[in-house]
Amino acid sequence: MWALRRASPALVTAAAAKLHSDRRGRRELSAPSRCESLQAAAQLILRDSVQYAELNGLLYGLKDPGADQSAATQTPVAMLPFCIPEKAFQDCVALSPLWNKLVDAVARDVKWLHATLETVAKADPFTGRLLKISKQIHEEGLRQPLMLGIHRSDYMLHSGAEPRCLQVELNTIASSMGCHAFHVEKLHRFVLGRFQEGAVGRAIRGHYGDLKGDDLTKRLPRNVTLEAIPAALSRAQAVYKAQTKGAKDPVVLFVVNDDGRNFADWCFLEYALWEVHNVRVLKKSLKEVAEKASMDKEGRLWLEEEEVAVSYFRAGYGPEDYPSEVEWSARLLLERSAAVKCPSVDYQLVGAKKVQQALARPGAVERFLGPDSAKLRGCFAGLWGLGPGEDDQAIVKLACEKPEGFVLKPQREGGGHNFYGKDVAVKLKELSPQERSAYILMQRILPGLQESVMTRQGQLKVMECLSEFGFYSVYLGDGRTAHLSAHAGHLVRTKAQGVDEGGVAAGYAVISSPFLTS
Amino acid sequence: MWALRRASPALVTAAAAKLHSDRRGRRELSAPSRCESLQAAAQLILRDSVQYAELNGLLYGLKDPGADQSAATQTPVAMLPFCIPEKAFQDCVALSPLWNKLVDAVARDVKWLHATLETVAKADPFTGRLLKISKQIHEEGLRQPLMLGIHRSDYMLHSGAEPRCLQVELNTIASSMGCHAFHVEKLHRFVLGRFQEGAVGRAIRGHYGDLKGDDLTKRLPRNVTLEAIPAALSRAQAVYKAQTKGAKDPVVLFVVNDDGRNFADWCFLEYALWEVHNVRVLKKSLKEVAEKASMDKEGRLWLEEEEVAVSYFRAGYGPEDYPSEVEWSARLLLERSAAVKCPSVDYQLVGAKKVQQALARPGAVERFLGPDSAKLRGCFAGLWGLGPGEDDQAIVKLACEKPEGFVLKPQREGGGHNFYGKDVAVKLKELSPQERSAYILMQRILPGLQESVMTRQGQLKVMECLSEFGFYSVYLGDGRTAHLSAHAGHLVRTKAQGVDEGGVAAGYAVISSPFLTS
Repeated sequence: MWALRRASPALVTAAAAKLHSDRRGRRELSAPSRCESLQAAAQLILRDSVQYAELNGLLYGLKDPGADQSAATQTPVAMLPFCIPEKAFQDCVALSPLWNKLVDAVARDVKWLHATLETVAKADPFTGRLLKISKQIHEEGLRQPLMLGIHRSDYMLHSGAEPRCLQVELNTIASSMGCHAFHVEKLHRFVLGRFQEGAVGRAIRGHYGDLKGDDLTKRLPRNVTLEAIPAALSRAQAVYKAQTKGAKDPVVLFVVNDDGRNFADWCFLEYALWEVHNVRVLKKSLKEVAEKASMDKEGRLWLEEEEVAVSYFRAGYGPEDYPSEVEWSARLLLERSAAVKCPSVDYQLVGAKKVQQALARPGAVERFLGPDSAKLRGCFAGLWGLGPGEDDQAIVKLACEKPEGFVLKPQREGGGHNFYGKDVAVKLKELSPQERSAYILMQRILPGLQESVMTRQGQLKVMECLSEFGFYSVYLGDGRTAHLSAHAGHLVRTKAQGVDEGGVAAGYAVISSPFLTS
Repeated sequence: MWALRRASPALVTAAAAKLHSDRRGRRELSAPSRCESLQAAAQLILRDSVQYAELNGLLYGLKDPGADQSAATQTPVAMLPFCIPEKAFQDCVALSPLWNKLVDAVARDVKWLHATLETVAKADPFTGRLLKISKQIHEEGLRQPLMLGIHRSDYMLHSGAEPRCLQVELNTIASSMGCHAFHVEKLHRFVLGRFQEGAVGRAIRGHYGDLKGDDLTKRLPRNVTLEAIPAALSRAQAVYKAQTKGAKDPVVLFVVNDDGRNFADWCFLEYALWEVHNVRVLKKSLKEVAEKASMDKEGRLWLEEEEVAVSYFRAGYGPEDYPSEVEWSARLLLERSAAVKCPSVDYQLVGAKKVQQALARPGAVERFLGPDSAKLRGCFAGLWGLGPGEDDQAIVKLACEKPEGFVLKPQREGGGHNFYGKDVAVKLKELSPQERSAYILMQRILPGLQESVMTRQGQLKVMECLSEFGFYSVYLGDGRTAHLSAHAGHLVRTKAQGVDEGGVAAGYAVISSPFLTS
């Protein structure tokens, strides 16, 4: 049958036999045999779990669909959730409103923001271009002070006496995977609940250690992404309507990329907006925006016949999305208009690595957050600016000697392009001091590893993995009034040990969910 | 982007231009131009509607998935619902409890049933084999009188002064497509609701005629398949538990075929059983049942460690599903056991075309249904038995002269293998009188045609189509007590004019939903 219909029945039979022999022995399983047992159990429920994933929205467009434009494959997902201490998880949830407040406060301090990015802008043309747009719209006078943030703060669990999360980065634009994360929670609730019995159940329980009497599904925190994020977009549309005379039924524009293989991760936001909030969505690429959008003399944004209340960027976060001046002209039009941007160019700039690094300096977070700053500082990893004016000689020397303790990251957003291990030293030596300002150095967090069942293309692999934990937050404010500030769900991305770049779509990682341990 | 990402932008541009010119003219559109306009509108929302379908469970396993065992494609669906007069639709709904009662009454009159099928059994080995099993289990003494029926009565709309539905056939085994039908209603609710505005909305309204002020989604009757069918399976499990001492948490067995491309159409039943009713499902092929199932001395059915309360056949309806004696031994085991069968071999036999034809004879329905019979007879099309003892010379002569007025159908279940048009005469002449008893002749219903937007593999075609309307019903009884009898939702299958065989999976037809007209 499907998924296994062409797979070797011998594999399944061997898996079943292995489980039975494990069971007959009733012996305490040694660690390696527990691992084999997990593999065997996973093989038995592979088809069920992959089918459940696909039928519950975990789909990706097929890379080479040929004539069948609708051909799709499963989203790469973990079959089972990833352990995190409940306290570490809840600590991160509690930080969401602080990140919201910080991003807004920094974005409203335009002078500080622009000054902080000035040197980066010279080294990184992309940041430079965004900074130029920000300057232009502030010179013209900010037409829409209302800004919507859908942020995601990403952490890794730092091993130690009391494990705690250290921040990897803060995403302020196109924070994706929220829909997938919602559906993976559902998948894991199904797998842990449905397969509690028999040999498979014993193998799964063995994987999570000594939790004999527990209902494992109680360890899965509810993920609110698919309620909270559409509710925030809808709220922004409602506030826009209230402030704009005559706007009857304005749309939310999703700025998406031309590839669109990851449609499942934004379409569910669109459906919730329509089915729950009665708000219509139009999806366009930046190129299409350039061709079809215009601003009227009151500054309202129109897409042909439709007034746009909110412009939600799911693309436009990196230079790849701006292959020509056409895309930049679209971005400028959106920023100048009265449509609420999610995010505004200023919110996007707050997400720059350079700002993260500047905030890490003594007194910087305190300037914006006051007494709440200490809570945030608890999750900061070591961060060092590079290049002229940064007094970076000592840290560059150390990083060249012990590169395994660092990550070298470009300033701009979008994930990827990082340097790890020996490459840190190689790259640092290549760069001129001026060129170094396009990068920051970060303490490398080395989190504990866990055995994980990764599924992809209907196949599974059990591997030693580490995870990155993302926490979404939503914020709507105009600099004076905060209309909304809330935690908005979570994301777990799991990757095999040794895989440094973490893009799920690129196939290096899978989406998982948290399993809360005490 | 996806679906259209590799499609010609010129197509979309041309579609948009056509719609705009239609709109600018504001003229009353002629019929052919309305048709082009529907095509153009459909092209503009193709990607949106196909993505919605896929993300809401309308998936099929890809025929040739290569290395990617999870590769899937959209279920072939109509983009827009198919018109049927509300009265004709409600008349069919009202017949559901009568079909339930009739099937059960016929199945309990074993003598009549066996006698009716005796001649067919000689001509059709498959029916013969089922009959033999039925005889054996009644000789041994029926171990489980409780039977669960999930039937589907299929009709076509017969044109005339007052259009009414005439029955095509009654399915008493593996009545499929219920999950897909549920999701297509959701799809059509999205399409009709979301795209009410602008040129696309005007084209869709134009397609449905003069309904200017109406909310089109109000014309879509709610489809209850995905609530009613799992509820019936769960009820059967509960009654089994109540009657069987010691059965703690018995499973429902889904007997499925090895191909499994249509997994989406049974998996949602499984998920509802688990998530709503807390009932576990195991899915096995007949071959696997033969290998893994056994009956204990009390007659209880076990699948390895699991007690089976209900055996639900989604395969086993045609000879293709019994390639060897192994599968027949599995079927016999299931029938002899105390598990509740859905359907029992007797219920399956009631669905034979020969029984349909025998019931059409004067006095036959009346024997089982009494005063309710007249209501059922209102939907009977002309039906004629063939072969020895049937006095078929006159009708065979007529069918050879005017074959376009008839369908020649084999007695057995499962769809397909019918003869239409000239082939009716050719086949009738080939058959010996003895061989003829494996077939029945049926009046050919020629329903009105409607323009339909069929989507398949991410592409669309606008074609003149006809539809078959299916009405599900569920029944649980033991011959004395009816535990459950209810209407259980509906199905519309739409096929292009001239396509005689209607298998959706085979690609000749699409699944649609009813649009109720007054």
